[in-house]
Amino acid sequence: MEPVKVGLLGLGTVGGGTVTVLSRNAAEIARRAGRGIEISHAAARDYDPERIQGLEAIGRIGSDAFAVVEDPEVQIVVELIGGYSPALELVLRAIENGKHVVTANKALIARHGNEIFAAARERGVMVGFEAAVAGGIPIIKALREGLAANHIEWIAGIINGTGNFILTEMRDKGRDFADVLAEAQALGYAEADPTFDVEGIDAAHKLTILSSLAFGVPLQFERCFTEGISKVGALDVAYAAELGYRIKHLGITRRSEDGIELRVHPTLIPERRLIANVDGVMNAVLVKGDAVGPTLYYGAGAGALPTASAVVADLVDVTRALTTDPNNRVPHLAFQPDELADTPVMPMEAVQTAYYLRLAALDQPGVMARIASILGEQGISIEAIKQKEPEEGQTHVPLVMLTHRVIERQMNEAIARIEALDSVQGEVTRIRMETLSG
Amino acid sequence: MEPVKVGLLGLGTVGGGTVTVLSRNAAEIARRAGRGIEISHAAARDYDPERIQGLEAIGRIGSDAFAVVEDPEVQIVVELIGGYSPALELVLRAIENGKHVVTANKALIARHGNEIFAAARERGVMVGFEAAVAGGIPIIKALREGLAANHIEWIAGIINGTGNFILTEMRDKGRDFADVLAEAQALGYAEADPTFDVEGIDAAHKLTILSSLAFGVPLQFERCFTEGISKVGALDVAYAAELGYRIKHLGITRRSEDGIELRVHPTLIPERRLIANVDGVMNAVLVKGDAVGPTLYYGAGAGALPTASAVVADLVDVTRALTTDPNNRVPHLAFQPDELADTPVMPMEAVQTAYYLRLAALDQPGVMARIASILGEQGISIEAIKQKEPEEGQTHVPLVMLTHRVIERQMNEAIARIEALDSVQGEVTRIRMETLSG
Repeated sequence: MEPVKVGLLGLGTVGGGTVTVLSRNAAEIARRAGRGIEISHAAARDYDPERIQGLEAIGRIGSDAFAVVEDPEVQIVVELIGGYSPALELVLRAIENGKHVVTANKALIARHGNEIFAAARERGVMVGFEAAVAGGIPIIKALREGLAANHIEWIAGIINGTGNFILTEMRDKGRDFADVLAEAQALGYAEADPTFDVEGIDAAHKLTILSSLAFGVPLQFERCFTEGISKVGALDVAYAAELGYRIKHLGITRRSEDGIELRVHPTLIPERRLIANVDGVMNAVLVKGDAVGPTLYYGAGAGALPTASAVVADLVDVTRALTTDPNNRVPHLAFQPDELADTPVMPMEAVQTAYYLRLAALDQPGVMARIASILGEQGISIEAIKQKEPEEGQTHVPLVMLTHRVIERQMNEAIARIEALDSVQGEVTRIRMETLSG
Repeated sequence: MEPVKVGLLGLGTVGGGTVTVLSRNAAEIARRAGRGIEISHAAARDYDPERIQGLEAIGRIGSDAFAVVEDPEVQIVVELIGGYSPALELVLRAIENGKHVVTANKALIARHGNEIFAAARERGVMVGFEAAVAGGIPIIKALREGLAANHIEWIAGIINGTGNFILTEMRDKGRDFADVLAEAQALGYAEADPTFDVEGIDAAHKLTILSSLAFGVPLQFERCFTEGISKVGALDVAYAAELGYRIKHLGITRRSEDGIELRVHPTLIPERRLIANVDGVMNAVLVKGDAVGPTLYYGAGAGALPTASAVVADLVDVTRALTTDPNNRVPHLAFQPDELADTPVMPMEAVQTAYYLRLAALDQPGVMARIASILGEQGISIEAIKQKEPEEGQTHVPLVMLTHRVIERQMNEAIARIEALDSVQGEVTRIRMETLSG
């Protein structure tokens, strides 16, 4: 059978990795897919031919991405440019031309996925985006197909390798956030502008996609609550460890009676949980289904070859499904497009979690009782409270508390009242806490 | 669209679970699959109607399994009887009648899969067996589709929950094998005849399937090396822990220059590895691909609802692919049937691993040197050697060694020579050791 012809947009890290994987494993991939998969036309503005293995197998390399999506020979367009523009225009034009699309662009899918999938449905083409979440881990396939029998209850994922690397180093070496971030930038694990990673925006893009797949709702990135790790202190990491917890930057989405929780924030989790032991740049996603119980998926969440692994898996999927009646294909968001639900995404104020609180209080009789009574008045029960040794020369001592679960609105009020006390110095550090047990 | 009609064989644990999941999550499953999935005809010799939720939704329940596979209305037959006969006859007959098949029967697939898949190919029908390996974890889908871009290098799996429960209890409580086995039987985690689980036969069935999917070779259960956990002592578990290792009953399959390793045996692995921390009845499979690196899949490996989760996922897959040209469907063993390789499965004697050795030696000068020189003569280098305290009243002391990697044949000869020494009492305990690092 004739090889499938692929048009490739972008020859950066992931684009180069895709060329390498398709060339290095060409024979094995064809044995799986039933036919060869060839890049017949690629476009890149700027790339280093010396650093990409397998480049010689590409039919034609130009600099005009629009020429690729207009190329009549191309059956599948692989978009690896990133960003919103011109990626969106290119993807929509490819679909309009009746071409299938594979992309690793999480920002594009999280923000414009609803529009892209509607266009694809209209034209009867497929859009693969396995590489958009957790790199090479086949988590989209797991949610969309492997767990299709389940009522998914919640998902918790470590889905940003940079953030996890920083938190792991902070714990292992007792170092501060800024210090580790600088090292991560030197090692190439973090971008020069680390905002997307450390402020949780990248994780929010990915979580938005996972949430839609799990719960059958449209993509709603703009409703995702996002808090980064820049305010997590070395002290908090150490105190959490003393209490038997690790701090991870988790994306959490959960179905509750009031709607869907969609939130990215630093989270204390019990150190016995497998996901608490996922360290360094690795990713892991924990999914709780009503039938299967908890399942976990672990692997490299970024990098040239791991991400290419997911891109090429999508290419094999599209190749295998080329002859399928479009109405019978696996739906983009796991549920059939006319079966999406309008379950609302809840505001963070309405979400219930447990909390770790740290504050600096005057070491005087009655202070702890005053704080505890504020919490009590707000309906918050305390699971543990620990007064630490004061640092030399300090008039205030660190006070660390774990609370039971409570609505975030109550906690916001409690924190405001505590911060207003004369005996309390500065702000209350608040890190949410989850048991991830069911 | 009309619901898909399913014929169900067996209403035992997994059959009952399948009925429950299909009924409880019917609406959600239909939203994913694009149409309803209904059990129109079931057959069971013996079942408890009180204990199965959703039974009332089944069109017709009889006792004749052959009547189900002959029922013209049935489009997909789900075989949940287990064993070889009449499961094989029923599955082949269903295929002959042009029906798709879904099964959870690992023994049947491991031993008769080649024949079943050939018949299915001939007739243009699908055979799903996600539930045959690791219960609800979608590991077959991950290998066959999610990692389709990769040259798979090796797989190591905890794929028998009973064995893992026993080893976990032995470690946590310092108890002996026989003692924990009796408890596992009382709890219902182990069968009255535990041979299949503790001797590794069940794991070998599953590993055989994973190996074919990974390496594109036919199923070759009869060539799988299998060693159970009944000879692992509480002492070994404790000594391994002192050295920084855990003992797990692993199924390992690896591609080497000389062929394919296919082996199930107790294995020391470094305690820092995520898979070393998979405890109790849980399963996990670690897959190393050349592009994606290591990925791990974790979840419940058995039980009514987790296994039903995989059965129903296969039903959704078949439903989604009903209109696909048979030549374009995902191939049963990941690779196209005429593209299977004849790479040989290696005999265990030719496999290279590291080893943990324990023996009882006379506490006299020169004994340790004699043993070390035998190992040296066989080309085996020692990574660690520890003489333990003798137990009260014993003339011999336990000697524990870790070796570097060596061909098993060399180790067999070394062990025979050491056991022949007058200064050594009884047999040498040998447990293989893997770093699972690359």
